[in-house]
Amino acid sequence: MTALPELPPSDRVRIRFDPDGARPREVRVPAGATLFDAASWNGIAVDSTCGGHGTCRKCRMRVVEGDVTVSRLDPRAFGPEELRAGWRLACRARAEQDLRVEVPPLVTRPKAATVGVGRQVILRPALQKRCLTLPEATLADQRTDLERLRDALPDLELRVDLPAIRNLARALRAGDHTVTAVVVDDVLVDVEPGDTSGRLFGIAFDLGTTTLVATLLDLATGTPVAVASRLNPQQSHGADVITRISATMTDPTALERLTALAHDGLDRLAGEVCADGGVGRGEVYEIAVAGNATMTHLALGLDPEPLGVAPFVMASRSFDDLTAADLGVRAHPRARAYVFPALGAYVGGDIVAGALASGMDRDRRVRLFIDIGTNCEILLADGDRLLATAAPAGPAFEGAAIRCGMRAAPGAIEGVKISDDDVVLQVIGDVEPTGLAGSGLVDAVAAMVAAGLVDASGRLVAPDAPGVPPGLAARLQQVGQERVFVLHFRGDDPADSLYLSQRDIRELQFAKAAISTGWQLLLEEQGLTSADVAQVLLAGSFGSYLGPAAAVRIGLVPDVALLRIVSAGNVAGEGAKMALLSVRERAAAQALLEEVHYVELSDREDFNDRFVERLAFPV
Amino acid sequence: MTALPELPPSDRVRIRFDPDGARPREVRVPAGATLFDAASWNGIAVDSTCGGHGTCRKCRMRVVEGDVTVSRLDPRAFGPEELRAGWRLACRARAEQDLRVEVPPLVTRPKAATVGVGRQVILRPALQKRCLTLPEATLADQRTDLERLRDALPDLELRVDLPAIRNLARALRAGDHTVTAVVVDDVLVDVEPGDTSGRLFGIAFDLGTTTLVATLLDLATGTPVAVASRLNPQQSHGADVITRISATMTDPTALERLTALAHDGLDRLAGEVCADGGVGRGEVYEIAVAGNATMTHLALGLDPEPLGVAPFVMASRSFDDLTAADLGVRAHPRARAYVFPALGAYVGGDIVAGALASGMDRDRRVRLFIDIGTNCEILLADGDRLLATAAPAGPAFEGAAIRCGMRAAPGAIEGVKISDDDVVLQVIGDVEPTGLAGSGLVDAVAAMVAAGLVDASGRLVAPDAPGVPPGLAARLQQVGQERVFVLHFRGDDPADSLYLSQRDIRELQFAKAAISTGWQLLLEEQGLTSADVAQVLLAGSFGSYLGPAAAVRIGLVPDVALLRIVSAGNVAGEGAKMALLSVRERAAAQALLEEVHYVELSDREDFNDRFVERLAFPV
Repeated sequence: MTALPELPPSDRVRIRFDPDGARPREVRVPAGATLFDAASWNGIAVDSTCGGHGTCRKCRMRVVEGDVTVSRLDPRAFGPEELRAGWRLACRARAEQDLRVEVPPLVTRPKAATVGVGRQVILRPALQKRCLTLPEATLADQRTDLERLRDALPDLELRVDLPAIRNLARALRAGDHTVTAVVVDDVLVDVEPGDTSGRLFGIAFDLGTTTLVATLLDLATGTPVAVASRLNPQQSHGADVITRISATMTDPTALERLTALAHDGLDRLAGEVCADGGVGRGEVYEIAVAGNATMTHLALGLDPEPLGVAPFVMASRSFDDLTAADLGVRAHPRARAYVFPALGAYVGGDIVAGALASGMDRDRRVRLFIDIGTNCEILLADGDRLLATAAPAGPAFEGAAIRCGMRAAPGAIEGVKISDDDVVLQVIGDVEPTGLAGSGLVDAVAAMVAAGLVDASGRLVAPDAPGVPPGLAARLQQVGQERVFVLHFRGDDPADSLYLSQRDIRELQFAKAAISTGWQLLLEEQGLTSADVAQVLLAGSFGSYLGPAAAVRIGLVPDVALLRIVSAGNVAGEGAKMALLSVRERAAAQALLEEVHYVELSDREDFNDRFVERLAFPV
Repeated sequence: MTALPELPPSDRVRIRFDPDGARPREVRVPAGATLFDAASWNGIAVDSTCGGHGTCRKCRMRVVEGDVTVSRLDPRAFGPEELRAGWRLACRARAEQDLRVEVPPLVTRPKAATVGVGRQVILRPALQKRCLTLPEATLADQRTDLERLRDALPDLELRVDLPAIRNLARALRAGDHTVTAVVVDDVLVDVEPGDTSGRLFGIAFDLGTTTLVATLLDLATGTPVAVASRLNPQQSHGADVITRISATMTDPTALERLTALAHDGLDRLAGEVCADGGVGRGEVYEIAVAGNATMTHLALGLDPEPLGVAPFVMASRSFDDLTAADLGVRAHPRARAYVFPALGAYVGGDIVAGALASGMDRDRRVRLFIDIGTNCEILLADGDRLLATAAPAGPAFEGAAIRCGMRAAPGAIEGVKISDDDVVLQVIGDVEPTGLAGSGLVDAVAAMVAAGLVDASGRLVAPDAPGVPPGLAARLQQVGQERVFVLHFRGDDPADSLYLSQRDIRELQFAKAAISTGWQLLLEEQGLTSADVAQVLLAGSFGSYLGPAAAVRIGLVPDVALLRIVSAGNVAGEGAKMALLSVRERAAAQALLEEVHYVELSDREDFNDRFVERLAFPV
């Protein structure tokens, strides 16, 4: 059940829904919302086969107290008696005042999908198909092909380009005047001969720095048909965004290559999910893409250099009128593309998608959203305002800056426990450990702080320090000039073992200081403390693996009850799915751009002081 | 001086302009028109360098009686004293009631061009360039490149596509933050580094069935820079539209070839005028094209078959969002294209352009517009309604169906006089005659009717008929089974001579009957007779050569004083120029689609009776 979005009270009206046979529900919605949307947002089932487009005339409700504004009274929907009794089509009736509304029992199952962090999304895709049988022309009716089509779609104000007109003319003759119009938003994408209205698909892409994920969705039913993922092929030009931006600055041909690699990666995934799902590429009429600002710029062939240097300026926050071809994806030749807008150079479309998927904009609770990576994006919602910032966490979690670091792949240590005198490792794939993943790093340092092996200042203690048991003291070794803690011995030389060095601990310390300064400043900005935080959502592939206890232990996240720390999973990809499933969700994503107040950390005079304050580990 | 368009009186307001030093002018304009437009439409000179876009603040006027609605009060334009005294910017002030307005003396010359049939067009192109110096980004001002641009153009609601964003980012850095935005209508076509605002060009195309004409216009000044023409290369697939349509019906590859030929023809002309004018192709940001429906369909790659068979259905009347590339013209890579909309399959964009250029929509007089060709388009305006029809004239005027017919080229007889006993020929290029042009055909038949060589029924008289002088009788010969009239002897055999056959005369007779039935029915539809016609405009390359006296003599045009019959020249091309020069004229062309009532002749039961009635020659 989705909570209500919160806006200033003056813009709100109260609606009491009385669903047949269920308990009444009172909701508050923005004035001007349709009864259909008000019900959809609040999980109240409404009959509809057209998804609120005003054509199926199934979303009947009876207004029993107050009055609604009706944008278009459909004379075929109700008789005069019914109108007098208050019956209206929910998708055409706008709530401008407080209302009581009776909702009749369901005749058909409403089309909805559960996505994101428990979000129920009523199907209302930007993509729709309309099967039409157009009257044949006569000398008395010489309307053009296009006029004939427009007259059959009076509820749409179509934008029609030349190829669509070409295909319309062909399809009308090939399909014996029965054709299917393919519409995305207000764009006539194609006109197909005959009735193809049952086949309409979209692909949601998570365009990650590390990983690309594609989900093929059946937009007639809202169900996922196939999923595929692969490493971002841009990896060859650097593991993180900064390295890739640098590549374009030093090599004038790199941008073109990076763009081509992104296109190739997305296109291969599109091919895979279409093959898996038994769907033709030409049946995919829209794609949605959620990526950070750098990945988005690179995929669109936009110079990312200004993102890499202060003052961190994007070419554009959002992009209109994109096609799948602009992103290198071979789908229907005129398939459209929705690319998530970005809040800032370091709070990109992936975070907007994540905020959407986790419902950050529609909750009264104080919630923190933390996407941990080289660049750590943080959102704070308190039901009133939505604040965002980006903290420069550095590469500690990616493994690159850590001596024995590696990605979260088979052989990676992802969990570390220290009990009494021994170290217990949790290794991905149940094989001999070969390196330390980001979550293992956090776990290890948390355990070492708890065991007194690392002091509050982040220094590894000496082997002979008081209270260090002999088994652990044996692991405190020297490699070169540096003190290390051996996690896994390989041979006699500690340099050959898997260990954590003093410098590794510093890297993590810097990262956690940057991140915690970020959320700390956001909380202060709203006059809140850690104690007020009702939920911490950990997002991103790293965040999903992170152990809440360890994260609290080292001060990476606020010190709240562990049950309140939730792994949100691949929220960017979920957001992209939501954008395909519902224009309303897409509008909510766009609205986030206006609602979110971005706090630039590098601009703040007190950032360095705060950063230093938060370097210490809680002991 | 352009007359006012006439609309229902309730929508009109009266404005009395008092220009400094000139006599007052009272005009009536649609309520809601700006003072700028009201003055422009009525030839009252207004200072302006931005063309009414609200940026130059030069179009100052003082409202001394009544009050105007101001859409956006520019605080930099006037002080409080001036505002109280009634000073307003004319382009921002809308007339919603009767007004008296003082117009100050001119400081600069208004930019205007004389085009079409004596039309004065105030420069207000859809294409504009704006040179901007954008503030550099700082950490406190992290607006995106696009936001920075939009904020500098508050009067425009730009549509911006991906390539424009790419170029904006590049230009901002290359031009040291001084850039020039290239805008066509509401589309950001490009952003160029530095100040390029002085260079903006467009090409107006007359896309004729026979001839293509291109005019390169400097849209900063409204002046034509270069003109070029060539035969339509589609000639190889037939001389007229029906033959070309047939070609696509019998050969599935013909459409693609015809489209390519049109593209090639237009593109070559573009190259020629750019070379002549010293203008780079990349400086041409918009083209305008006026052609009949078939030529337009072929050029846009649209199947013309439905245009060739009843009920004569177009794919679309108008086309939005076209680019020059859609018409095969290499100009700026994202140059836009305006294609004149069509009224019907046989009253195409060329006629709409012609009606615009000849001001058919803004005149109180009864005027007939006749474009003579294989298909003859006829417009009738009476200050109240605008009627249109198309008459199937057949190929008589094109020369193809006439035994000794040829195009109007050197060697073609274009004029024929019969005095007493002799025939005097007027030949193009002052060479030995080699054939008979369409105008010569009309002249010859008119002279023969006057000389009694052709009777009212259209029959050639016998050489021994009473009253035929011997010199003319000698020219009445037999070729095969057919009687002919020899215009020019070549050797002894009359079959070798240049002659007019009985069948040729029948062809012309059918053509003139079809055409005169057309205008006759339009006149009747409005309750008018020939005597009411104040002006007959003859358009098209054939109409321009036609002798008014001969046209009246055979009944091709109404029997009005010859001075009232005016050759209008290449009005389609003039209309295309107007569309480039002024968005207002473009809107007027679009409005014609709503204003014109199309009368389908082939649908009328009385057409055949009328046609037979009008076969006779007036004697």
